[in-house]
Amino acid sequence: MDDGADLVSNIHSDYPEIAEKIIGSMEETTTGVIRLRAMANDGALKFPVIAVNDAMTKNMFDNRYGTGQSTVDGIIRATDILLAGKNIVAVGYGWCGRGFATRCRGMGANVIDTEVDPIRALVAAMDGFRVLPMSEAAKVGDLFCTLTGDIHVIRPEHMAVMKNGAIIANSGHFNVEIDIDGLKELAVSEPKEVRSLVDEYELPSGAKIYLLADGRLINLAAAEGHPASVMDMSFATQALATEWAVKNSNGLEVKVHNVPESIEDWVSQLKLKSMGIEIDELTEEQKEYLSSWQMGT
Amino acid sequence: MDDGADLVSNIHSDYPEIAEKIIGSMEETTTGVIRLRAMANDGALKFPVIAVNDAMTKNMFDNRYGTGQSTVDGIIRATDILLAGKNIVAVGYGWCGRGFATRCRGMGANVIDTEVDPIRALVAAMDGFRVLPMSEAAKVGDLFCTLTGDIHVIRPEHMAVMKNGAIIANSGHFNVEIDIDGLKELAVSEPKEVRSLVDEYELPSGAKIYLLADGRLINLAAAEGHPASVMDMSFATQALATEWAVKNSNGLEVKVHNVPESIEDWVSQLKLKSMGIEIDELTEEQKEYLSSWQMGT
Amino acid sequence: MDDGADLVSNIHSDYPEIAEKIIGSMEETTTGVIRLRAMANDGALKFPVIAVNDAMTKNMFDNRYGTGQSTVDGIIRATDILLAGKNIVAVGYGWCGRGFATRCRGMGANVIDTEVDPIRALVAAMDGFRVLPMSEAAKVGDLFCTLTGDIHVIRPEHMAVMKNGAIIANSGHFNVEIDIDGLKELAVSEPKEVRSLVDEYELPSGAKIYLLADGRLINLAAAEGHPASVMDMSFATQALATEWAVKNSNGLEVKVHNVPESIEDWVSQLKLKSMGIEIDELTEEQKEYLSSWQMGT
Amino acid sequence: MDDGADLVSNIHSDYPEIAEKIIGSMEETTTGVIRLRAMANDGALKFPVIAVNDAMTKNMFDNRYGTGQSTVDGIIRATDILLAGKNIVAVGYGWCGRGFATRCRGMGANVIDTEVDPIRALVAAMDGFRVLPMSEAAKVGDLFCTLTGDIHVIRPEHMAVMKNGAIIANSGHFNVEIDIDGLKELAVSEPKEVRSLVDEYELPSGAKIYLLADGRLINLAAAEGHPASVMDMSFATQALATEWAVKNSNGLEVKVHNVPESIEDWVSQLKLKSMGIEIDELTEEQKEYLSSWQMGT
Repeated sequence: MDDGADLVSNIHSDYPEIAEKIIGSMEETTTGVIRLRAMANDGALKFPVIAVNDAMTKNMFDNRYGTGQSTVDGIIRATDILLAGKNIVAVGYGWCGRGFATRCRGMGANVIDTEVDPIRALVAAMDGFRVLPMSEAAKVGDLFCTLTGDIHVIRPEHMAVMKNGAIIANSGHFNVEIDIDGLKELAVSEPKEVRSLVDEYELPSGAKIYLLADGRLINLAAAEGHPASVMDMSFATQALATEWAVKNSNGLEVKVHNVPESIEDWVSQLKLKSMGIEIDELTEEQKEYLSSWQMGT
Repeated sequence: MDDGADLVSNIHSDYPEIAEKIIGSMEETTTGVIRLRAMANDGALKFPVIAVNDAMTKNMFDNRYGTGQSTVDGIIRATDILLAGKNIVAVGYGWCGRGFATRCRGMGANVIDTEVDPIRALVAAMDGFRVLPMSEAAKVGDLFCTLTGDIHVIRPEHMAVMKNGAIIANSGHFNVEIDIDGLKELAVSEPKEVRSLVDEYELPSGAKIYLLADGRLINLAAAEGHPASVMDMSFATQALATEWAVKNSNGLEVKVHNVPESIEDWVSQLKLKSMGIEIDELTEEQKEYLSSWQMGT
Repeated sequence: MDDGADLVSNIHSDYPEIAEKIIGSMEETTTGVIRLRAMANDGALKFPVIAVNDAMTKNMFDNRYGTGQSTVDGIIRATDILLAGKNIVAVGYGWCGRGFATRCRGMGANVIDTEVDPIRALVAAMDGFRVLPMSEAAKVGDLFCTLTGDIHVIRPEHMAVMKNGAIIANSGHFNVEIDIDGLKELAVSEPKEVRSLVDEYELPSGAKIYLLADGRLINLAAAEGHPASVMDMSFATQALATEWAVKNSNGLEVKVHNVPESIEDWVSQLKLKSMGIEIDELTEEQKEYLSSWQMGT
Repeated sequence: MDDGADLVSNIHSDYPEIAEKIIGSMEETTTGVIRLRAMANDGALKFPVIAVNDAMTKNMFDNRYGTGQSTVDGIIRATDILLAGKNIVAVGYGWCGRGFATRCRGMGANVIDTEVDPIRALVAAMDGFRVLPMSEAAKVGDLFCTLTGDIHVIRPEHMAVMKNGAIIANSGHFNVEIDIDGLKELAVSEPKEVRSLVDEYELPSGAKIYLLADGRLINLAAAEGHPASVMDMSFATQALATEWAVKNSNGLEVKVHNVPESIEDWVSQLKLKSMGIEIDELTEEQKEYLSSWQMGT
């Protein structure tokens, strides 16, 4: 079970001899899946991987609802600011980003999204968010949070135009989303810890901006990470995907696999049951209608 | 270009000789794609089909935002009811269903979802909606709207327990989602048109319930369908997919194809431009980071 | 029963002899109450007036929920635009304004509010809306709607900087909120009706902007006004306030009166009942606690 | 400056001789104002009181936005539960209650309101919330939070029917809103602390329910209370009201006074400025229109 493909990548680089004995790996982050797909495309991957992260029972719940709430939670604990009335910039509108944007709006903030993907940008706009390039968002944001899985999405050129009092946090994978070295070079003095996990940087413009938790994941650094009641789905999916990999280890192709649909169905049925929610079942007539192209014309 | 696979299915049934000359078909509804996939699975499909409906530039916009607004619009025009404070039952939580549910909540309604798919049911619950089986929802709903692509999702057994004054509409594909024949049998008298497009049925319980537009698509029957500003994306996707099918007609496999990603990107970029929205571009450093599995560890 | 104090003002100006015989007037609009208060302050009011508009059972429901939905409805019918993704400027954040702003956000729009009152502006900001002066809002809005009860809140100086395609509507009281004469002077050509109720004006900048329903109330001009299910409360309040005025006609002071609280309670209890909603009652212990300042310390 | 009228009530009971020397008191809670009004009605009040709580710059911001966020914050810190998908019962729909209900919905919960006031109940319903009597809400809630300013709004009769795992918290004034003594009598064993601030009670039904912070204010007990960025308005209002009381001490009637409107305007203007928000000003023409009843007809 791997997070960010760290273990897999370590094995491939430093312990290639172990790779052959490995039945498969379960990867549970977006960042990791991106990297593993890159490895598979390069022909470098040496054993099968299950993209647990890509399971709907994982990313639609853990990433969206878990990251959304826990990032808001971490930011409030670190700063004790009122979110209502704040201009909050959600950097990235993947599942994590839209989870965060939705929760911030739910807390009364005016949310701005930045994106590099045109379809996701369009969804953000249609969802009622303001979509701006970072160069514009940087000027109006009171709080910025990165959730992209990519590197240096907030750079010194953006920080230089931020308002006095602006706050920067990260809730993506590594602490690489904010260019912290660039911030340190830009600042006219050493960072000053003004509250636990809150470092003040003074900019050439005279503005003071605040970096939370040194750019580490704010929901882990300042709060308790995702609530158990959403991680249960991720872990159930992971456990069942592992069982599946072991049971099918003989014929499992060396590539990045999706979690089988039957596992996703079962996990979500169990979760509904635990929440006391009952749903409908297809009638025989409906099953026939959906599977037949000759009916209904 | 086909809607509901009606044309394709007609050709296969009644004019099989034409089928061979056809380069391909563009299908723009969920219902149609379901039926075409069934045909392909049966080995019955005789020419390639492009699932335009499944393009994100189509279903995420047309189905979600278009159907959401136009269904609300159609219901208000037909009935002139205030949505705020009403218990509205959205039958189905696919893109159309969640578009409708979201818009109804945005208009102040208390929305209940019904589903047969456990993952979609879970998403509905996590999105803050009440999820009930139809047998329970039927007792509390003030307004029901079907958006499933399936047959007979509201049946006499449900109608029999509805409240006096309950309203039933359909915004799915055909007028088959509500069992209208069943309603007619159940009713103790002939339907009475109490307002244009609104038929009153009296039930054995004494309750009077109201069927809109005889179960036809309420957004087409009572309003103007989807606004042009969302259909533009669907039609652009369809036109470009057609061009692509023609240009690639030689090697095109006989199956249900997805719209190429490059077409989706282009359509969404054009749409953003028309809305005056600029977005970011990946830096060289970011492209390298995302494509390389050796960086960032 | 009066709307906009038109009748009262007419009587005072042209038929002062009737004034003495009048027991009282019921006023049902914000605009009217403002004008009647001005009359009372000037010592010009000649008979008692009940500010039915100010009853919570009126303005919190009719103005907020009624105007909110019906204005959205009128705009969609007149223009058939998709609200999702549009920059919509709600001019004024009173009950009507916040009803409209809330519904537009619920339809997926990005809503901007303009205000002259600092407290209302602050509430708008805390509710997550962007608050701008009209001079700034004018440059970014796709659609503007006035709901202020005041005159000339959109003026030629604002229109001159609007984007090509901008749409202007009014849902306040009179057709005076938009400076239409000013628009006509500003325009380089005669207005052109491009769709029923939609007039195109070409500006010196080359931009074309669209005035709906010649500035008349869009919910009445293009839709059916407020739904019956919200007007019921207004009319019930009005009827009962009239009865109260007649029963108390002897001692009724010549001023603007509020609707008695007992009437408001009764109307809202009846409405809850009609919606099938039950609520709690205070226990004896609770009544005592709330009325006593000696308990609970 | 008083909170809950504790000080004032103490002085009246135990130190009546001090009362005569007091210029006035500033009361900053809903509970306190209710009690002071009761004292004034009884003719027991001995010096003037300014109902700072009733200032819009106080209760519309502190109570609504401050309590909303900080209560959610306190509950998450105490329990680490995911709010999305939970049935949350907001007991009371005053400013605090609607702040809490709105924020919970914003976090993805399905919110149920209970009320004793028919108008507030109707507003809750029109805002899209489910309104139930506590006897029904008790059966379906996953989490209950009291915000009423009243006593024993959750009683043993309600607890007895709660689901296994139900959580109870208070964010009203005192720890009297939940009948904790009643809970202790109802429980079949001693409370067990299962997590800091979380006590488990086992009911005769076998269900285990969880009381947070022994019924004390959860936003103070488990989080940091209201953020500074909302308390600033309350304190500014309080300071300026105090100055006003001192300056006007001679003629100040012995009753419960409202904060002068000019103070509210000034506080909100300063707050807007600090947020970088500019608003419009009335033109001369507009001022004249609003103050004149002869124009505009």
